[in-house]
Amino acid sequence: MHGEENPSPTTPIPLKEGERLDALGKDGRLRIIQNADLFQFTTDAYLLASFARPSASDLVLELGSGSGVVLLLLAARTGIAGITGLEIQERLVEVAERNILLNQLSERAKILLHDFRQDSPLLSARFDLVISNPPYLRAGEGSPSMDKSITMAKHELNCVFKDIAWAAKRWLRARGRFVLVHRPIRLPEIMAELEKVSLTPKKLVLVHPKPGAPAGLFLLEAREGAHPGLSIDPPLIVRGRDGGYTMEIEKVFAGEWPWKP
Amino acid sequence: MHGEENPSPTTPIPLKEGERLDALGKDGRLRIIQNADLFQFTTDAYLLASFARPSASDLVLELGSGSGVVLLLLAARTGIAGITGLEIQERLVEVAERNILLNQLSERAKILLHDFRQDSPLLSARFDLVISNPPYLRAGEGSPSMDKSITMAKHELNCVFKDIAWAAKRWLRARGRFVLVHRPIRLPEIMAELEKVSLTPKKLVLVHPKPGAPAGLFLLEAREGAHPGLSIDPPLIVRGRDGGYTMEIEKVFAGEWPWKP
Repeated sequence: MHGEENPSPTTPIPLKEGERLDALGKDGRLRIIQNADLFQFTTDAYLLASFARPSASDLVLELGSGSGVVLLLLAARTGIAGITGLEIQERLVEVAERNILLNQLSERAKILLHDFRQDSPLLSARFDLVISNPPYLRAGEGSPSMDKSITMAKHELNCVFKDIAWAAKRWLRARGRFVLVHRPIRLPEIMAELEKVSLTPKKLVLVHPKPGAPAGLFLLEAREGAHPGLSIDPPLIVRGRDGGYTMEIEKVFAGEWPWKP
Repeated sequence: MHGEENPSPTTPIPLKEGERLDALGKDGRLRIIQNADLFQFTTDAYLLASFARPSASDLVLELGSGSGVVLLLLAARTGIAGITGLEIQERLVEVAERNILLNQLSERAKILLHDFRQDSPLLSARFDLVISNPPYLRAGEGSPSMDKSITMAKHELNCVFKDIAWAAKRWLRARGRFVLVHRPIRLPEIMAELEKVSLTPKKLVLVHPKPGAPAGLFLLEAREGAHPGLSIDPPLIVRGRDGGYTMEIEKVFAGEWPWKP
């Protein structure tokens, strides 16, 4: 089954082979098309969208949008002026475009097929906020997936973190914010790469899967040209001792940030 | 009242003017002389001593020992081969020497009056573990104390963090560990300075004063010449919602480390 050309916002978007329609968040307002053969989003996307806390007037850029989950969450739940997503995989760009249409968010969200290691004439603007949920693993680390598309989303095949730091710097306005989610194992290297392009780490949050467990993720906010000085928020614990989601993670799923700004 | 010369280990050590005798830990085995006019130790010392987890055969060096609290905790509670403390303030060296005698730890602990920015013929050994609870504030930050000695313990008057990283590197054996406690606001800079001298950050712990509060301290372990790769332990919360010490901090006070190695 193939999608129609230019469906109107009210037209149901047909699913292609291998795709399914999932609810995004619990408020029933957002739906997302995902392809089981491509990279599927995780809790990390909710964490990034919630931690980013954009201001109402913010122009936002996302580096590596996949099928558009963070783009949809920010465009639907916040008052941002607009969000542009860059994605290097054509198949994911096509899915993300249908997701934007499906959720009637074309006025505030768009996705571009673009390798963000390159400059682009389409991106003349300076953005207030750049966000990224990059591949966590270095090329060759872990076990590569059978599918090249998934391997690219999880491994640094096309770009290394230095490329991401440079892209964030290129498109951020002075004093703009760069917000990302990544794995603790790489925190020192990532802070160092950000400092090299004058993106100063300002706020860090550790995410632990359960009480007493090592951190599995971190969320970091850096600010262009800011003075050094990091603050570390309370940790986010995903599941409590009873195995259920904690109150703070329920807030994250609802698009709120549980701690004080 | 003045102290006697060379008291024997069983002689009670007389206190000098302005000094008092405190229990160190809750097991009643250790006592510490402190001078209210000089820098007095804090919970940070227990955290450092507990997080350091030396092996039985370790030769340990402390950069900036103050009146010797961490030195006493490690010498008394662990099986280390020996610990040497360096301290630049003569008055504190004198107090630390009496503390070592008072607790009958002269066989395993000693303190040297030394500026660790300089090399020393007395320190020809390479150490397995270097520890430090350095001044947290840059010169001019915060409000200086009326007392120069306290200001030196809290502010980077005599040395900046770069000096501490260099000293740790100078006296550590290959693959030896450097363990320190410091403030989160300076984490990115400290990781960068350590990387510059090939002390690779390997383990990080955030210490929060209570649930839901930002981190007030971090504990960091770096290893000389190690491959990059950080793990982040569960956070340490000092006081629970009821205002009392948490179980994990009680373990720290008892000299144990609450999380898995």
